[in-house]
This record gives sequence, structure tokens and C-alpha cells, in this order.
Amino acid sequence: MSDRDPGAEPIVVGADAPAWRHRHLLDVDVLAADEIDLVMRTADAMKGILARPIAKVPALRGRNVTIIFWEASTRTRVSFEVAAKNLSADVVNIAASTSSVTKGESLVDTIRTVQALGAQMLVMRHGTSGAPYLAAEHFDGHVLNGGDGWHAHPTQALLDLYTMRERLPGGSIAGRKVVILGDILHSRVARSNIWSLTAAGADLWLCGPSTLLRGLDRWGGRAAGFPGHGRFTVTSDVDAALRDADVVMALRIQKERMDSGLLPSLREYTARFGLTLDRLAAAKPDALVMHPGPMNEGVEIDPAVVALDRAVIEDQVTNGVAVRMALLYLLAGVHGAEGAHDAA
Amino acid sequence: MSDRDPGAEPIVVGADAPAWRHRHLLDVDVLAADEIDLVMRTADAMKGILARPIAKVPALRGRNVTIIFWEASTRTRVSFEVAAKNLSADVVNIAASTSSVTKGESLVDTIRTVQALGAQMLVMRHGTSGAPYLAAEHFDGHVLNGGDGWHAHPTQALLDLYTMRERLPGGSIAGRKVVILGDILHSRVARSNIWSLTAAGADLWLCGPSTLLRGLDRWGGRAAGFPGHGRFTVTSDVDAALRDADVVMALRIQKERMDSGLLPSLREYTARFGLTLDRLAAAKPDALVMHPGPMNEGVEIDPAVVALDRAVIEDQVTNGVAVRMALLYLLAGVHGAEGAHDAA
Amino acid sequence: MSDRDPGAEPIVVGADAPAWRHRHLLDVDVLAADEIDLVMRTADAMKGILARPIAKVPALRGRNVTIIFWEASTRTRVSFEVAAKNLSADVVNIAASTSSVTKGESLVDTIRTVQALGAQMLVMRHGTSGAPYLAAEHFDGHVLNGGDGWHAHPTQALLDLYTMRERLPGGSIAGRKVVILGDILHSRVARSNIWSLTAAGADLWLCGPSTLLRGLDRWGGRAAGFPGHGRFTVTSDVDAALRDADVVMALRIQKERMDSGLLPSLREYTARFGLTLDRLAAAKPDALVMHPGPMNEGVEIDPAVVALDRAVIEDQVTNGVAVRMALLYLLAGVHGAEGAHDAA
Repeated sequence: MSDRDPGAEPIVVGADAPAWRHRHLLDVDVLAADEIDLVMRTADAMKGILARPIAKVPALRGRNVTIIFWEASTRTRVSFEVAAKNLSADVVNIAASTSSVTKGESLVDTIRTVQALGAQMLVMRHGTSGAPYLAAEHFDGHVLNGGDGWHAHPTQALLDLYTMRERLPGGSIAGRKVVILGDILHSRVARSNIWSLTAAGADLWLCGPSTLLRGLDRWGGRAAGFPGHGRFTVTSDVDAALRDADVVMALRIQKERMDSGLLPSLREYTARFGLTLDRLAAAKPDALVMHPGPMNEGVEIDPAVVALDRAVIEDQVTNGVAVRMALLYLLAGVHGAEGAHDAA
Repeated sequence: MSDRDPGAEPIVVGADAPAWRHRHLLDVDVLAADEIDLVMRTADAMKGILARPIAKVPALRGRNVTIIFWEASTRTRVSFEVAAKNLSADVVNIAASTSSVTKGESLVDTIRTVQALGAQMLVMRHGTSGAPYLAAEHFDGHVLNGGDGWHAHPTQALLDLYTMRERLPGGSIAGRKVVILGDILHSRVARSNIWSLTAAGADLWLCGPSTLLRGLDRWGGRAAGFPGHGRFTVTSDVDAALRDADVVMALRIQKERMDSGLLPSLREYTARFGLTLDRLAAAKPDALVMHPGPMNEGVEIDPAVVALDRAVIEDQVTNGVAVRMALLYLLAGVHGAEGAHDAA
Repeated sequence: MSDRDPGAEPIVVGADAPAWRHRHLLDVDVLAADEIDLVMRTADAMKGILARPIAKVPALRGRNVTIIFWEASTRTRVSFEVAAKNLSADVVNIAASTSSVTKGESLVDTIRTVQALGAQMLVMRHGTSGAPYLAAEHFDGHVLNGGDGWHAHPTQALLDLYTMRERLPGGSIAGRKVVILGDILHSRVARSNIWSLTAAGADLWLCGPSTLLRGLDRWGGRAAGFPGHGRFTVTSDVDAALRDADVVMALRIQKERMDSGLLPSLREYTARFGLTLDRLAAAKPDALVMHPGPMNEGVEIDPAVVALDRAVIEDQVTNGVAVRMALLYLLAGVHGAEGAHDAA
């Protein structure tokens, strides 16, 4: 064993691991508790790989992972690219936003073309909510949603969950007060987090200017619940939201919100909702600070808050690579195949 | 043999395969019948590789394949990238359209620079007809033309030929009626196909608005022939063209044609030349439908036609990867080297 | 040994090689003479690798080299990419100029994010002088400066030095007259070359229009020296500069200089400072001609000069790959580790 390529060591997630049942990852709402647990445990194994000097295993050797983004992104795209390369996949990047592939071509044609070009796993980001669902109907391989419109960003929600479980004492978020602060209305990050955090038993608070809570406030108040899912509180009272919080996640404020009249000014947003040390003092002393990035420091979050040890924003990024490795691995069915082999 | 890396299996194209005699692939007009046959047989072997779970062989391991496109493209660029990666080459992508490499720099300087940077095989697309010929004079390795101006698109012609041979009963296009429908004038796809299809003995018809046949109609009529090559028919009579056709290839209509006054409107083009089920009914019942993509569905081709089983547009894309693998492999001289080794 | 993967052969730079002491490469000013010599000798070994049919060694297998450029560039970016791939590193390209990673995000946040994404070696180009120094303070791995503002371009200076040593008889530039001709004021290439060339004992002349020598002419004249470093001559007298020169390096003239009023016109620049055969006749008969590229042929350099055998512009490009391989290799500490292993 000692002269073996360390990259060839199997990825072990425990003998009692449940089976993974999904061909695609479109949102977190379909994941059962044991499946989310499997993602978390597989991501643990991937973090072990990331800690090696050569963070590379042959699990997806020769597989074609195509990353096609209709919206500009670096953070998420690179995270998927690194995750896929760490698993030895061949990565093809397509910047559809600036690409001729989509010139007058329907989404379905593009998906079929990308498949015919050899894509076996398709990571996509699209400005239209639901686009990955349409893609999944026409793609024979595996679709991973890297963000669609205001709808969902499942890998972000899973890496957020992983980071909370990793950093909260006891490793559970059941009963923990988690605050998402900012432009909830336009945030796919918030939407996916609502599902996974309430499913995990968090006491979830959504806080921001009332114009950026529209639609959500209908379900607001302690008594209301997301249809068919967990319960959460919607409020514009930032002090109430932050009081005794275990986790505070600030969202990026987009300048476009000003143009559309939903926000009077960045300055006013910062004055009323910016996450400062003062405001954070209302939370628990060791409350985690999170942000999906990229940050507008000095707008939705103060640099002094970012500098805190318990600001785990870079942990989120690193965990994002591990969680995406886990998801690529699980979706590719490699785990299932290895399980079968182990049983034989 | 059983514990051998399946990726290391040799690529077999038959003991009686002719030699490949070209350093570059600039157009199809210089390919003799036995050479085209060699490309087709090599592409067969590559399709076998594409059918493996891990579609990867080490044939070009460590070779530098540089893809430099002065025109935006995704389909062709990704096809070459996947083809090269399937052969284990190292791929460098350069988007010259948005790149500083070409800022005030002559084409020859750019080619020499790219070579000095390590390019061994150069895949290029350029807006100027003939550019790859100039490049080939100054490049010590192998140049593959990925499309130059209105002039040539040889890999497209070869993948079209491959797809017809694969799908037509009997596997030959000799005597088959093949119709190219649309903007022939500005189409490098049509120009390269004229050579390879007439050489293969097709009864080739070029059909479109007379403004988009200009220059070709000089050679038009059943009696005329392309200088030094096969014969074809040029017509604006879409019904005559489609009658009893074995293959109908629709070309993409560019909006720029409207701006230049060559077409009155997209709507009128669609009304007179759009490939609909109605029009296609004049062709043979099992006539193949092809399109080089990207399609403007509802303009030059109706979605109901695209949905037919005999619309082989995705086959074209997949065969494009196989044909480009074959060409990279043949040009790299790997085949010749292996042959010598086998003989020793 | 004969059946060994040739890619696995060790990179040998001599048993008496000095140790490499730097974690980052930010500029050449901190490199001692023996360190520059080590870079040159390591680059020699890398040129040996480039001469192999498969120019690939496993030295950096599985290492993540992230190339992030805030300014558009192809030449330097591709050179680093090829260098890293030749060493079997995994390369991630980020075009920060067109990327969302930097939307309102501070440089430090971007650097931390890129690190959290897995970057182990970071190659960066930035429009702000000093940016790589800031990055190095926040990055746990290795930072390589690919050009910052008008400040420094250390890999260019080292590849220029390598090319001169390779092509000058005797292999030394001590006492050689080296002329840098053009827009010295805005040139990071010139600035880094001033350090390395004067340190190597060259008789360095900086020549250009007086508006493009501003600040440097303060130190001008044969008597002046760069603070704490070698001596050089600053002049607008192109005939005096070229007289008996051993090396003439022309710099690219940017059109922006005209807009800012520093140059009356490109035509006048060419008339007064363009490197023509006539002007070059004043230099030594075998004087080397260099240019960092991309060239404006017919502006700062005449095509007839570029066509000379002693114009070593493509050598510079190829040597750039070898020098960057050497630097990646040295910075990664692979050399040190191998040395330790050899001693054991």
C-alpha cells in the first residue's frame, strides 16, 4: 500500500452511507435529510483531499464536465472548475454570455449541442428562473444548477450549511437563530437557503428593507411557514433580527436596485441595514458572520466585521470547492459504483 | 492484455490504410478520394473511442494544440477542444477577437509568436479568406482551418460527409441528391461542401434567393461545373431543388444580410425558403435533414422539421468531434509513426 | 532507466547550485547575482525539456496555478499557462478585467477568495503599480508578478537577460552596450530591465523622446546612477545611443501617448526614433534586435529590421516559456525539496 499513488485512495464516507438518488442537482428542496447528510459527509472526505499537498484524485478521470454560464461569474465558475479538476475531470468552459452558441439559438438546442459535443456533466448558470429544469429534461447526463435567476443556488446553500455545521459548536443548526440580511427578494442564495436551513431546523430570520422582502412578507410573522416546508420570520426590524443570533449572513446589494427605485441610496441602506460591529453586538458573542460574495465592503458589511475571526467568508469559499467535489462525485454515480464493488 | 489501460489501446483503421500526405488541413479541395476515405475510417475508430465510458486515449499526450479564433465561436472551438483533450493533448485557447495579441500586430507576427509559445498544432478561425494559408507558410507545425471568411470550413465539410455516409442507406453519396439551402454566397460551409460532395459523386443542388447565389449562378444550370471539379445545380426554385432530395442541409441566415439589403426581411426569407414539413414533403420520405448550427428555428428551419428523427443535426455535432479527432491524429503523424513501429 | 517515463527525469541544474530564497517574484531588484544565475541555469534545463517531443515533466503535478489578469494580455498569459502546463500543473485562468470577481470587491478580498478556491501559485497582472506586493502580503502561496502598472515586469526582464546571454558571444553582458529605445517613462519592461541589466554590468542606454524620459533624465548623463544600483545613460540622441551598441531593444509605442499629448504623432515618432536598418547601421554589425511585443511594425520598428537573423524576438518568446517554467519551479520549492532528497 505504501508505494501506491495517494491520489488513488478511495473516497470513504462511511459504510452506513445512504444511497444518492438524484441524477441532477437543481435545487435543495428535493433533498431528504439523509441525502443532505450524505453530501456533508462526502464533503468531509473531499476536505481531506484538499488538505493533501496534491489535492487531486482520479475519481472522474476522463469525464467531460462542461461549465456553461449565461451570466458572468468568477467565484462559482472557478469553484466548479477547481472541484472538477481535483477529481481529474476534463473541464470545458463556455461563457455563453459572450458566445455565439446562443445567438438566436434556443436553450434546448444549446443543451443538445453541448451534449453532442461530449458533455457528461453540465454545470449551468442562467438568468432565467427554471432554466436548469428545462435543460435537465433534454440532457442525458447530469445537470448541476449554478444559479438560475432569482430562483435557486443549491450548491451555495449546501456550502453555507456545511460551513455552519463545521463552525457551530455541536455541529448542528437545529434551533440556531440564523439571520439572512439584505436583498432577500432578488436572492437565489436566500431562496435555496430557506429550504435547507428550515429543513435543518434553524430558527430562520429574513431581514431587509420592506421593498426587498416583497412577496416573502406574505408568509411573514412567527406563525407563517413556507408552503410545505419549515417556518421562518420576515422582518425589517434589524435589531430584532440580530438579537441573540447564532449566524448572520449578509447578502450583496446590487446597484441595480437603486436604479429600479427599490432602494433610495446605498448610503441609506448602509445606515439602516449595514452589518457593523455595533449592530452585530446584539447577536451572540461568537455569532458566525457569513457572506456569499463578492462583498461590497462598507455597504452591506463593514470591513471591521469582515476582519473578525468568526467571519467565515473564506471558509465558505473553500468549503464550496469541497461541497461541489462531493456533488460532482455523488451525481456521477461513482459512489454507487464503488459501493457495488465493495459489496461484491 | 486485460489489465492494460484501455486508453492505451491503439487506434486501428485497417492494415490497408493509405498514407496521409498533408501537413495542414486548409481546405478539402486537395484531398484525394483515398485520403477522404482515410479520414472517414479514422473517424470511425474515433467514434469507437467516444463510445467508451472514458473517451480518452493518449495519442497526443503532451502535445500543444493552440486554438486561436479571431471570430467568436463556441460550437467549433469547443469541438476542437474536446477532440484534442480526448487525445490527451494540452489545449491553449486564445480568443484573438478580444485579445491584445493582435493589437496592431500582423497575422504573421501573431502566428510566429504562438509558435514560439509552444504551439505544435494550430487551429484557427479568421474573418479573412485565405488567412490560414498565410499562417501555414510561417508555422512549422500543423495548421487546421476552423473557418476563414467566406472561403472554407473543411472540418465542417468532412463531418457533413461523414454524417451522410453514416446515415444514408448503403453508406455512399454517389448519385444522391443533396440540397444546400440558404445563403450560399456568404457560406464557407457551402463552399467546402461543394468540393467534397461533388468529389464524392453527389448530385448537388445549391438553392436560395438569387441575391445569395451571386457568382455561383454563373456556373449554374445542370450543364455547368465548378472549375476543375464536380458539377452542381444552382437555382432559386426551392420546389425543384427539394424534389426527391436525399439530403437537405439548411444554412443559418445572418441578420446582417438584411442590413446589407440582400434580403428584404427574415419573414420573407422564411416564407419563400424556410425548411418546413410542407416543403420537405417534396423530398424523399426518409431524406436526411442537416444544419451546421447554430439554428434560427422558425427562420431558415421549422422546429417541426428539427424534431424529426431523420434530422441528424446532433449527429453532425458528435461526428464533428470524431472527425476532428481523426484529423488531429492524422496530421500529427501519429498514424504514420505507429505504422512504422508496427512494420518493424 | 531506459524504460522510464522520460517526463520523470529530474531537472538538473548543477550540484553547486545556490539555494533559492524567495517565496514570491515581485521584481528583479531583490535578486542577488547568484540567484539570477540560478534562474538562468534552471531555464537552461527547461529549454532542454522544451526541445523534447513531449515537452512535459511532472514537477508541479496537481498544483493549482491561478493566472489572474486585470489587464488584457495574451502573450504573457499564454506563456505562463504553457509554462505551468509543461510542469503538469493545473491551470485556472481568470480574466479579472471582464470578471465579476472584482465587482466592487477589494484586491485583498479577491486574493483571499482566489486562495480559498485553491490557488497555490498566483500569477497576476494589475494596472496599479505595487498591487502584487499587496497581494503577497495576503496570499499564503507564491505570487508571480506578470506586470504591475508602470512599475515592474520581472519575468520579462529575466527572459530578456536570458536571451542576451544566450545570443551574445561569450554569454556575458558585462560591458556590453544595451539600448532600450522608446517610451521608457510608461514601461514596466524598461524599469525591470534597468535593475537586471545594470546589475549584470551592462552599459545601459535609455533613449526616447524627452517627454517619455521624464523623471529618468534627472539621473541622466554618464555620471548618474540609479539609486543604490548600476549606472545608465539617458538621452534623446538616438544616434549617440545606437553607436556601437551590442543590443537594441525597441519598446511598443502606445497610441494613448498621442492622446495625452506626450507625442505629437506616430509618424513623427517613427521619423525620429523608429528602428530602421539605416539607424541600426550605427550599431555593431552583429547587434541583437529585441522587442517585448506585440510590435507595431512600421512604427517603432521597421519590418526589414524584424526580418534580420539577429532579430531575436521569437527567441524572447520561447525563452519566456523556459524562464517562467524555471521561476514556477524554483518558487514552488521543488528544487529545494529535490536538493534535500539528493543529500539524503
